[in-house]
Amino acid sequence: MLMLSGQKIGTMTRCTIAGVVTEVGSDVKGFKLGDHVAVGTYVNSCRDCDNCNSFLDNHCSKFVFTFNGVDTDGTVTKGGYSSHIVVHERYCYKIPDGYPLEKAAPLVCAGITVYSPMMRHNMNQPGKSLGVIGLGGLGHMAVKFGKAFGLKVTVLSTSESKRDEAISLLGADNFVVSSDKTQMESLKNSLDFIVDTASGDHPFDPYLTLLKVRGLMALVGFPGEIRVHPATLNLGARTLSGSVTGGTKDTQEMINFCAANKIYPDIEVIKIDYINEALERLVNRDVRYRFVIDIESSLK
Amino acid sequence: MLMLSGQKIGTMTRCTIAGVVTEVGSDVKGFKLGDHVAVGTYVNSCRDCDNCNSFLDNHCSKFVFTFNGVDTDGTVTKGGYSSHIVVHERYCYKIPDGYPLEKAAPLVCAGITVYSPMMRHNMNQPGKSLGVIGLGGLGHMAVKFGKAFGLKVTVLSTSESKRDEAISLLGADNFVVSSDKTQMESLKNSLDFIVDTASGDHPFDPYLTLLKVRGLMALVGFPGEIRVHPATLNLGARTLSGSVTGGTKDTQEMINFCAANKIYPDIEVIKIDYINEALERLVNRDVRYRFVIDIESSLK
Repeated sequence: MLMLSGQKIGTMTRCTIAGVVTEVGSDVKGFKLGDHVAVGTYVNSCRDCDNCNSFLDNHCSKFVFTFNGVDTDGTVTKGGYSSHIVVHERYCYKIPDGYPLEKAAPLVCAGITVYSPMMRHNMNQPGKSLGVIGLGGLGHMAVKFGKAFGLKVTVLSTSESKRDEAISLLGADNFVVSSDKTQMESLKNSLDFIVDTASGDHPFDPYLTLLKVRGLMALVGFPGEIRVHPATLNLGARTLSGSVTGGTKDTQEMINFCAANKIYPDIEVIKIDYINEALERLVNRDVRYRFVIDIESSLK
Repeated sequence: MLMLSGQKIGTMTRCTIAGVVTEVGSDVKGFKLGDHVAVGTYVNSCRDCDNCNSFLDNHCSKFVFTFNGVDTDGTVTKGGYSSHIVVHERYCYKIPDGYPLEKAAPLVCAGITVYSPMMRHNMNQPGKSLGVIGLGGLGHMAVKFGKAFGLKVTVLSTSESKRDEAISLLGADNFVVSSDKTQMESLKNSLDFIVDTASGDHPFDPYLTLLKVRGLMALVGFPGEIRVHPATLNLGARTLSGSVTGGTKDTQEMINFCAANKIYPDIEVIKIDYINEALERLVNRDVRYRFVIDIESSLK
């Protein structure tokens, strides 16, 4: 087993963690004292089923959430809201030298959530086109990965107010307000891929018809219900594919990719006593794009 | 251009055709007098767009239906309901020696409709498992291809009356009545693939949850609307992918595969004067599994 502590930072919504190793169990092979590590949205799985054996640990039926999960010994997990955490090394990820801890914490939540389906569906093909629906924690990472993959990225948002940040801050190539029928019409049959990060209820047909023949939409949000006309899928041979977080192997690969390509989530670091205000701002979507709580400073 | 005539047979619902070449234009390279050929659901496309250039001619925006389509010269296509048909060779398929004409006609409708997504999604992996929803013209071909691919095939039907034909006639490994909650529950998370051929309205979540993690459902029917809970897709990383007929290259490949593997659709050959009764039986789902009209005999 591996013990994490020291500078500990968790994203607020899903409680992923980055920290420094302060103690190492005798069987641990991959980590040593002082290593910078991240812990994602889960801290356990059976390690013996087909999913675990394929590094799809995130789909193991005995998967344990990092926060508010019930572990195999019956304890309720506390996530990053504590001074230390003990985690099996399988669920810890090495943060490469020089990659800021506070930037690493959202990688293993928002980052892997979009990276995993993007890689699974071969979106890393330079020159292809990507639509990103929603510009929050997940969406802004999808834009960054899309640009790193050499894609032409179009951000689709309900709000014109996101245009500047999409283009100037994140480097998207194009921005479309989804209520603008003329712009939506001009995008029809033009995109190879879409990553749909929107969790609010929204129609699907208007977005799916933006895809070319055999185009694919990766769904990572949780709207109330998906309603699609079959012809939208059939006539364009289009695909809708769900995804949730990512496996342990993909997660390490994603962190390494971010370090190698200097991809950093945009965050706002706060102390724990700002949490209520942060939560209110989160509800009002007033954050670019993730709050990260500096637990160590908060405890001083 | 190529002229077809002689023994001409069309499936009733979508009017695909099989026949014998009686005349050949000077530019025709692939066919000669006397060849047995099939014509699918479309007889023209632009031959110059991205889709046509990728042999996804079925997705060309200038695609012309074999029956009741409007061709580039403004004529309305008549399909197989005529003594002869003139077709560009691109939209004709060679029927290998010995493959019965009357069996070939439904291949280029029902056959390609299921073969195309099955191949696109790599369902030809022996040992994997396939669910087939609906046992009509499309479904019975999906079962035959599934068995030829070495899959463990489960037929899912609303009607217990289909059990015998599914198992004994078509060689399916398993049969489940979809209203039987116990049987459906026992199938959960067990299938690699599903081909959904049902065009009647039906729920999707109960079928999609039968798929394993990363399992895929190919949709080839046209129900009224698809309604899915996002968690059904996301938590299992499941995929729903639409499809409609197939391209010209895939279609020839499918015919060759059927000939090589002795795959024959089950049909009932009728003469044209039986058409009203056949239509009534079709509405009552009383056909195993396609009517084929023998036009040549009908004209005698």
